[in-house]
Amino acid sequence: MTEFSYTLIAADGAARLGKIQTAHGVIDTPAFMPVGTAGTVKAMMPSSVDKTGSQIVLGNTYHLMLRPGADRIESLGGLHKFMNWPKPILTDSGGFQVMSLAKLRKITEHGVIFQSHLDGSKHELTPEISIDIQRKLDSNISMQLDECPAHTVEKKIIEISMNLSLRWGQRSKEAFDRRPGYGLFGIVQGGIFADLREQSAKGLIDIDFNGYAIGGLAVGEPQDVMFEVLNNLIEFLPRDKPRYLMGVGTPTDIVGAVSRGVDMFDCVLPTRSGRTGKAYTRRGDVNIRNARHVNDPRPIDELCKCPACNDFSRAYIHHLVKAKEILGSMLLTWHNIQYYQDLMSSLRKSISDGALNSFIQGFHHEQASGDIEPF
Amino acid sequence: MTEFSYTLIAADGAARLGKIQTAHGVIDTPAFMPVGTAGTVKAMMPSSVDKTGSQIVLGNTYHLMLRPGADRIESLGGLHKFMNWPKPILTDSGGFQVMSLAKLRKITEHGVIFQSHLDGSKHELTPEISIDIQRKLDSNISMQLDECPAHTVEKKIIEISMNLSLRWGQRSKEAFDRRPGYGLFGIVQGGIFADLREQSAKGLIDIDFNGYAIGGLAVGEPQDVMFEVLNNLIEFLPRDKPRYLMGVGTPTDIVGAVSRGVDMFDCVLPTRSGRTGKAYTRRGDVNIRNARHVNDPRPIDELCKCPACNDFSRAYIHHLVKAKEILGSMLLTWHNIQYYQDLMSSLRKSISDGALNSFIQGFHHEQASGDIEPF
Repeated sequence: MTEFSYTLIAADGAARLGKIQTAHGVIDTPAFMPVGTAGTVKAMMPSSVDKTGSQIVLGNTYHLMLRPGADRIESLGGLHKFMNWPKPILTDSGGFQVMSLAKLRKITEHGVIFQSHLDGSKHELTPEISIDIQRKLDSNISMQLDECPAHTVEKKIIEISMNLSLRWGQRSKEAFDRRPGYGLFGIVQGGIFADLREQSAKGLIDIDFNGYAIGGLAVGEPQDVMFEVLNNLIEFLPRDKPRYLMGVGTPTDIVGAVSRGVDMFDCVLPTRSGRTGKAYTRRGDVNIRNARHVNDPRPIDELCKCPACNDFSRAYIHHLVKAKEILGSMLLTWHNIQYYQDLMSSLRKSISDGALNSFIQGFHHEQASGDIEPF
Repeated sequence: MTEFSYTLIAADGAARLGKIQTAHGVIDTPAFMPVGTAGTVKAMMPSSVDKTGSQIVLGNTYHLMLRPGADRIESLGGLHKFMNWPKPILTDSGGFQVMSLAKLRKITEHGVIFQSHLDGSKHELTPEISIDIQRKLDSNISMQLDECPAHTVEKKIIEISMNLSLRWGQRSKEAFDRRPGYGLFGIVQGGIFADLREQSAKGLIDIDFNGYAIGGLAVGEPQDVMFEVLNNLIEFLPRDKPRYLMGVGTPTDIVGAVSRGVDMFDCVLPTRSGRTGKAYTRRGDVNIRNARHVNDPRPIDELCKCPACNDFSRAYIHHLVKAKEILGSMLLTWHNIQYYQDLMSSLRKSISDGALNSFIQGFHHEQASGDIEPF
């Protein structure tokens, strides 16, 4: 049986090239995980997600526990089989969406009671319940339940919350049933306060997880604040475990975080933006709804190998988006995930070559160059 | 250069096996044409439409002339290139959608003036303008402009309308610029009146088209009324030209019409139903939204080779449709077009084998057998 493991292959400054082994296959890091909230990466066939080079997708425990339900997915053979994604899956704990989507939340030491945003039905998440749900989903990487207060909250509150998350981390660890090829990650909290982040990291390391996530960022703070948190925190995270920056981010966020030693990312931006007419490209963001594209026979990016760029013009995709055609969402989502995965692939190669700094210079130069001239 | 041609290969009773040659390839008949209203078969990649065995798609002149505009599509290389569908395309004349979608219509001998349902802008369709738009779209099979009154209207009105359509047919023919591999079809009108249908057919044959469509059906009349019209009309249509029943229909409509000598069909049912949770199957219609599917690990149809049936359970597709996930529309649309194309393929084989009657018996028997027992 495959043991869950992380192998550090090469480093370039703080950046790391690595490999995570799971029961459902390998993840080359730094890795980007497309978000498959409700058991589908929206507007994508799983075979298409695979073609972009994605090696792992994220499922949302909150959404899946409410619909179709964890017991149902378990009885149907687990989430891999249910959604026809045979490769690795990471699930979050459900805590973040409880805070952002559910109604009438009540948080206690024991856990959180909430009402579904779908039908108002009452549910409970505790560290033990969250771990049990993630086991039923057959998630390769389970996340501890944590509490994630807004980043603007005062330090005392952040500290109380961080310590609650630590105790929930301990209970999550105890509830986690070790199986070969499956892992459990702890989540570092502590807001923008370096001392709290250090305390949180050390407390989690004492509990001993298979990997360490950084939570509570990408919630509206400026990029330099996020990078400063990483600058101070990374040295406290073990070198022999993967590091996952939750919910991040834009291409420049990811490049900056990789250079600071982060290994894993997830974000709804490429998929959500794909459904609203935005394309991520080497030359920065392109709003395909803009009238400048209406007669443009050129692809979004002539160097991109995705079907949207290989087979269709900006004029056509502009037309699809204006006409609210599903194919517009399908093509832009595919392109955006392809762009993210190509970026991760370039980052991995640059680390391997010891050439990350020059890659990053080129990346920022190209991003700042702006979209091609109007046709 | 390829001449536009129809070859009758075999007959079984009134049913015909044939082949239409166009500048963009061959169409085996009887053929079903998926509807690509606005330059996309909704929720399908064109490469996926191709994989279903579809050899021709239909584009709607009304939608395309309003958005993105015929001149724009022409300047971008025509509709095949614009939508990345290199195979044959048939376009309607725009007349039907003007009647059903546009506002403030005014019909005269010259043509029809209307307001766009999108932005209220004023447009004109005449036989000459419609043919010119279809030429700009680079449609392999253009349709004459016709008038299509409701089937309940009294005979005198139907007769006046039918004669107007004949005169518009003559003008369409004169406006049509003959090019190798491109054809123009006339449209038989006359409602449910056998004598008017005969007059219409004979008038069109005098004008001499590359094929003959049957219009004004599938507008709410019972199936036996439609079949009765076909029974009386077919003998007046030339054996050496394709026959196209516009806007039809359900699987049983198509089987009945093929057995009466029709060669071509188009219908929004498989695509539209795919976006509302309905699957067409050998055993009749399946509403995947129904709670009976919620735990069902079986495919929609275990004999179907489409991705929806090969890779996903009823339980999963039920979940997608309930959660309004785009992938639900993608999978059901693919399945439905696959079902329609498999049906056409079976019909062609049965005619070739001289076994159409026994195929039709088996078809009706299986349709009536109903969906598989609940899991």
